[in-house]
Amino acid sequence: MSDKDSQPLSGKDLARKPRGFPDKREGLIHAQAELVGKVTAIYRQWGFEALDTGAFEYADALGKFLPDDDRPNAGVFSLQDDDEQWISLRYDLTAPLARFVAEAGQSLGKPFRRYAAGPVWRNEKPGPGRFREFWQCDADSVGAPGFHADAEMIAMGAEALRAVGMETGEFVIRVNTRRLLNGVLDGVGATSAETRLAILRALDKLDRLGSSGVADLLGKGRMDESGDFTKGAGLDADKVKTVLAFAEAGAETRAETLANLSKATGGTEEGKAGLAELEAIALALDALGAPEGDVVIDPSVVRGLEYYTGPVYEAELLREVTGEDGKTYRIGSIGGGGRYDDLVARFTGETVPATGFSIGISRLASALQIMGETGKLDGPVVVLNLDKENPSTALSIATDLRRAGIRAEAYMGGSGMRPQMKYADRRNAPAVVIVGEDEMAKGTVTIKDLEMGALKAKAIKSNEEYREARPGQIEVPRAEMVEAIRRIVEAQA
Amino acid sequence: MSDKDSQPLSGKDLARKPRGFPDKREGLIHAQAELVGKVTAIYRQWGFEALDTGAFEYADALGKFLPDDDRPNAGVFSLQDDDEQWISLRYDLTAPLARFVAEAGQSLGKPFRRYAAGPVWRNEKPGPGRFREFWQCDADSVGAPGFHADAEMIAMGAEALRAVGMETGEFVIRVNTRRLLNGVLDGVGATSAETRLAILRALDKLDRLGSSGVADLLGKGRMDESGDFTKGAGLDADKVKTVLAFAEAGAETRAETLANLSKATGGTEEGKAGLAELEAIALALDALGAPEGDVVIDPSVVRGLEYYTGPVYEAELLREVTGEDGKTYRIGSIGGGGRYDDLVARFTGETVPATGFSIGISRLASALQIMGETGKLDGPVVVLNLDKENPSTALSIATDLRRAGIRAEAYMGGSGMRPQMKYADRRNAPAVVIVGEDEMAKGTVTIKDLEMGALKAKAIKSNEEYREARPGQIEVPRAEMVEAIRRIVEAQA
Repeated sequence: MSDKDSQPLSGKDLARKPRGFPDKREGLIHAQAELVGKVTAIYRQWGFEALDTGAFEYADALGKFLPDDDRPNAGVFSLQDDDEQWISLRYDLTAPLARFVAEAGQSLGKPFRRYAAGPVWRNEKPGPGRFREFWQCDADSVGAPGFHADAEMIAMGAEALRAVGMETGEFVIRVNTRRLLNGVLDGVGATSAETRLAILRALDKLDRLGSSGVADLLGKGRMDESGDFTKGAGLDADKVKTVLAFAEAGAETRAETLANLSKATGGTEEGKAGLAELEAIALALDALGAPEGDVVIDPSVVRGLEYYTGPVYEAELLREVTGEDGKTYRIGSIGGGGRYDDLVARFTGETVPATGFSIGISRLASALQIMGETGKLDGPVVVLNLDKENPSTALSIATDLRRAGIRAEAYMGGSGMRPQMKYADRRNAPAVVIVGEDEMAKGTVTIKDLEMGALKAKAIKSNEEYREARPGQIEVPRAEMVEAIRRIVEAQA
Repeated sequence: MSDKDSQPLSGKDLARKPRGFPDKREGLIHAQAELVGKVTAIYRQWGFEALDTGAFEYADALGKFLPDDDRPNAGVFSLQDDDEQWISLRYDLTAPLARFVAEAGQSLGKPFRRYAAGPVWRNEKPGPGRFREFWQCDADSVGAPGFHADAEMIAMGAEALRAVGMETGEFVIRVNTRRLLNGVLDGVGATSAETRLAILRALDKLDRLGSSGVADLLGKGRMDESGDFTKGAGLDADKVKTVLAFAEAGAETRAETLANLSKATGGTEEGKAGLAELEAIALALDALGAPEGDVVIDPSVVRGLEYYTGPVYEAELLREVTGEDGKTYRIGSIGGGGRYDDLVARFTGETVPATGFSIGISRLASALQIMGETGKLDGPVVVLNLDKENPSTALSIATDLRRAGIRAEAYMGGSGMRPQMKYADRRNAPAVVIVGEDEMAKGTVTIKDLEMGALKAKAIKSNEEYREARPGQIEVPRAEMVEAIRRIVEAQA
């Protein structure tokens, strides 16, 4: 490490953080931990086992196989180890798995079904909602050749999203396969890489531009509202119709979509093979009980098709959410996956059929936060510490409360009564316990119910009955303190 | 990233991993997750809140303040960001906290009590049991000037270790303070840095060399068994006696130790101040109910004294453990902490009194694993998939089992009956479900109880009654399958 290339800083200027690695506070951390717990519980329930490969891999072992590597500044964090070899932080959880499987070789029984949850790092330009460190939670079946293994991933992904509180209509997993699209591209004679890419890009805009906009992009080109012209893929009208019929084959049910698609595969072998893949997946999805609304076959899914070797799946949140700033957010993609039969072969030369699903935990946690579903957590009971000479009373009261299962702390700052009350408010404490000289002499404690206190201040007259039942401040003998606090905490819960 | 400095690799050679970042399997991952869960639950119960600062900090913000930076190759992983600034992976959880507190400034109410759990990275020479990535679980009170805040850390650390299964006598937290030792060093006239360091190093060997060996090292020097001579600190006999009396002041109870120490502080102001610190801590430890056996005052603790500004605490496992290899291991230090009033001042110029405790989760998890306390986990029920044409039967049986709360999977490999049974064995499956042509025709399933099957094979004659009650293989109507499996799983539990 050397500082010689950067301006030396001192004092307050030092206290800053590289962009894209935000500090996380209580609410978000708990939301994320809960998501990881619920998703991994589903993965376990479906028979997957834990594997954690750690943060670093050799750069050349990791390679660079991002599903979305056409993004600007896509990259990895790499540094040179003390033996001069380059090591990199993992950018996803799949590439290290491929290394693990290749390294273990025959000693690893297959199918190998593993799950993992943890941070990944991408050396990209950070921006709003775009981090350089984020959590993923993956499951993968390695050594699983059948398309029912893909269906299992999809059905399990849907169940994981249900487990974290999403209902039918709030999310969808869209399924497509590379071969089907390849068949259609072959069928319309799109052989050049350039034309194929232009068609893929056009299809990717179906959501946003609708049929006629995409038809323009598949044909001669499209002028947008600002007058900018995007060159089209150059297909003639019939072929545009064929491609659009394919992309818009999606229907209410998977069976209907497949029926539509059977007329739209372009008649190529590749197209038929792709259709057969989706038919096998649909059959297995039914056996796995995946609801129609949760999993759809959607031939317009294009993302990841260049990375995966067969079926691809994309999980999307459908609900538009209104943030605290009043703006509407569309969360969009929160996960996905697909079949990657070639990833292990890169090491061993042997194809190992594999398929996986990944949920973007950080993204999902942010979504829940924006939706206001990560509530403020209860704080601890705060025992004021008024005797500067000897904090023993406050400490032993806090100890008694904790031993009774109540979250509690003795105040640890150096200041007087008012700052201590302010502190208790800030920590969202349900109550404070006060032992002044009077209470010491009498063997009592004073308890302030902070929620009650706030209510009293707001509605001092209309709440008299309520007040009588649950007064804001009480004095009880020390021996009755634990029960009095317990009643307050439970009443607030 | 550039590969130009390393030999290009291909194929199988690529499948390797940098040393010091081991892959973790099921048992260790669960042990670690359980430790984190239990320790953070204690931290929360004591009123701390979660804060996660992420992996990267600016190198100059992080600084280099390891408590044990006298180790060889101590260092951090750093790389240059795209704006040429150096960023580093955190090497502990305390330095990023100091940055966070300094950056937040007055907007952060104090005391700020946070906990965190996560990986840290150290760019050191890896070796057996010495990793470059490991987990820590910390709690810190920032803005807490009183020594009862240190006592809280210590008592909470002891409770956290109890929560993960350690009993009195299996661990100890040793407490010392910098000022007390400084007082003794002043008292014997050890003013040069060299002499002070020689004394500290001698005291650090008390455990291993005993009184006479340390006396040699405090005096003229010591010749070890191999004939190597270590130069001593050069104290005369009286002063050696003073220092030894101090270092060996530890007694059965904290009160006795303090009484011994009051005679051994060398009469300096600094020594008296140090003694007062320990007296305040001992008073608070009593109020917090910290058992005598769990927390001792031990003036021979030296580690971290240069890093911390006041009290230091070191948590140690006392149990010697025998590994699977028959060798005896001493786990030693598994955590610790202390007061670091200067860490935030580095940024702001203002001293912010702070104290913290850290538990080495990876080290503790390894210890539990060596002790054999991370058991083999139950595997899923495996539904064999014998109909290659249509896996629907196997998939829907697995679905039924999962919906009944039973961990289950349909076999996803491509092979026949024998490999499927072998797979189920390897996964530690409690049972397999088989639906062949016969069963299909009859509407039944065959269930093999794998534990029972293993027992039968071992004791085919003596276990007849047991066999009748719980046969290794049964055939039941499909509608009764879930209950039959549930009985097997529960009987094995």
